[in-house]
Amino acid sequence: MKKLALGIDIGGTNTKFGFVDRDGNIYGESSSPTAGYPEFDDYLAMLIEQIEKSKNALDFDVDIVGVGIGAPNGNYYHGTIEDAPNLEWKGTVPFSEKMSGYYPKRPIILTNDANAAALGEMVYGNAKGLRDFILITLGTGLGSGIVSNGELVYGHDGKAGELGHVTVKRNGRICGCGKKGCLETYVSATGIVRTVYKLLADHSCDSVLRDVSFNNLSAKMITTAALEGDYIANEAFRYTAKVLGLKLADAVAHSSPKTIFLFGGLVHAGDILLEPVRRQMNANLMSIYKGNVDIQISGLQDKNAAVLGASSLVWQDLEK
Amino acid sequence: MKKLALGIDIGGTNTKFGFVDRDGNIYGESSSPTAGYPEFDDYLAMLIEQIEKSKNALDFDVDIVGVGIGAPNGNYYHGTIEDAPNLEWKGTVPFSEKMSGYYPKRPIILTNDANAAALGEMVYGNAKGLRDFILITLGTGLGSGIVSNGELVYGHDGKAGELGHVTVKRNGRICGCGKKGCLETYVSATGIVRTVYKLLADHSCDSVLRDVSFNNLSAKMITTAALEGDYIANEAFRYTAKVLGLKLADAVAHSSPKTIFLFGGLVHAGDILLEPVRRQMNANLMSIYKGNVDIQISGLQDKNAAVLGASSLVWQDLEK
Repeated sequence: MKKLALGIDIGGTNTKFGFVDRDGNIYGESSSPTAGYPEFDDYLAMLIEQIEKSKNALDFDVDIVGVGIGAPNGNYYHGTIEDAPNLEWKGTVPFSEKMSGYYPKRPIILTNDANAAALGEMVYGNAKGLRDFILITLGTGLGSGIVSNGELVYGHDGKAGELGHVTVKRNGRICGCGKKGCLETYVSATGIVRTVYKLLADHSCDSVLRDVSFNNLSAKMITTAALEGDYIANEAFRYTAKVLGLKLADAVAHSSPKTIFLFGGLVHAGDILLEPVRRQMNANLMSIYKGNVDIQISGLQDKNAAVLGASSLVWQDLEK
Repeated sequence: MKKLALGIDIGGTNTKFGFVDRDGNIYGESSSPTAGYPEFDDYLAMLIEQIEKSKNALDFDVDIVGVGIGAPNGNYYHGTIEDAPNLEWKGTVPFSEKMSGYYPKRPIILTNDANAAALGEMVYGNAKGLRDFILITLGTGLGSGIVSNGELVYGHDGKAGELGHVTVKRNGRICGCGKKGCLETYVSATGIVRTVYKLLADHSCDSVLRDVSFNNLSAKMITTAALEGDYIANEAFRYTAKVLGLKLADAVAHSSPKTIFLFGGLVHAGDILLEPVRRQMNANLMSIYKGNVDIQISGLQDKNAAVLGASSLVWQDLEK
């Protein structure tokens, strides 16, 4: 009987999960859909079925010692998901409470998905031993987890660390959150698609991206085009990096992290993104910070940082 | 023999100090010049002389149990002042080390002046009991102290919380820090003077401020003119509030404070500043934060928050 923590990472499209030991080894990693379940109870029943199926397929018995969950707009203090724009369940979902109906008498701990990823980085990734760092997730949106004095910054209400929604431009691009000009409308997989379309409109040069419709265009295609030398794709990365670099310099003025880690699909572009982000951040840093902040790729880039981080919450809780 | 902590607040023009008991009562409060001493050792010798004079003028004997110092660009981890643009001493000044020559065998603790003010607010002001708040000082520049999870955010190098230097506008106003477009070039006593001059250039309406030279114009005069209904002065406050409100919304997305406290000369404008700052911040907040963040005037507005905060560092240290 192996004692394992169940880690769950809820995304807008899919939910990933796995059973994690204290050393960060994941067993029975699997995924099931998030979308298509307008009723939360139906979603949860299906998810539990998949979890149990995955557990039973392992060649050893599992004792689930607790459940850690990373979720968009997850509230650490209340164990709830609140008004998540990319999920189908509106209002406040009492996730932890409902989960404890399935796994009673164990710690059930929920946090924001990017916070979970930051914890994963701290416990199992490249942020081991760091007390001050920021993790930025570049997926459909832009998420962030801020660690100061060795602790996640939760804020008074558990909602801190929404760097995707700092303002780049007043009356700029319309954001899913209801605001305009938010960072994630420029810097994210969907943001760079918007930037490519603006560049295609502004420029008249050839581009392989002119043959792709907006709905079919992906960050991956833009990355491939950029690596093959496409001018529009490279310009899109330069613009993305310029916006991100400026806002990371602001973030440094807030919490002075040792390192900023980037995680997610866009990071596959490598130096096409990283090099200009570093340059733009440095150009906008106060002199006291220059040369003292590093931008690195997450050490869990090819693993599930949020599943690892969410499960680490359980181990932390049990060791209290 | 009264046991008191010596609290010192170093400003660009003057250094204030006082002897503080555990309850925040200040005795022998006084001030001496900072400017005019290009050699740090001369400054310190003069300061000690003033401190001793003030101590000897008290009608009871004082046992100085330790020294707390708030200083621009003060580094908590090293007890040094580093490259402070508004002070005459260049490079790194080993303040705590030199101070311990005068007051040996006692804790000597130095921090950034705005951090000291935030501590003062937490221990003796309106932030009592709050674990997540921000204090913004609006003086010659704009300083900030960020408290998260009940602790000051120092960052990996002790330099966190420089919100005066987040970027409002690329290639905007030239800042003393060497950058352009920093928040404090718009929002501070000097920032609002610059704004008035821009408005006087752009508009052709009458204003009492047209008779004052740039070097003679003060934030206090602008406040008086605004309260008397001067159009330019009121526009200057509206613009200042617009810029500050937007950047406070960004700060909320970082650390989700319960309250943001404003401290310093500009705050005497009262609702001419506060009301539009609240409105502009709320207009730029993500919906999850709306209605949950308060902007208040510091509870130590008429006291020396940094002297109180710096001395509280001593008491904290002694109670460890």
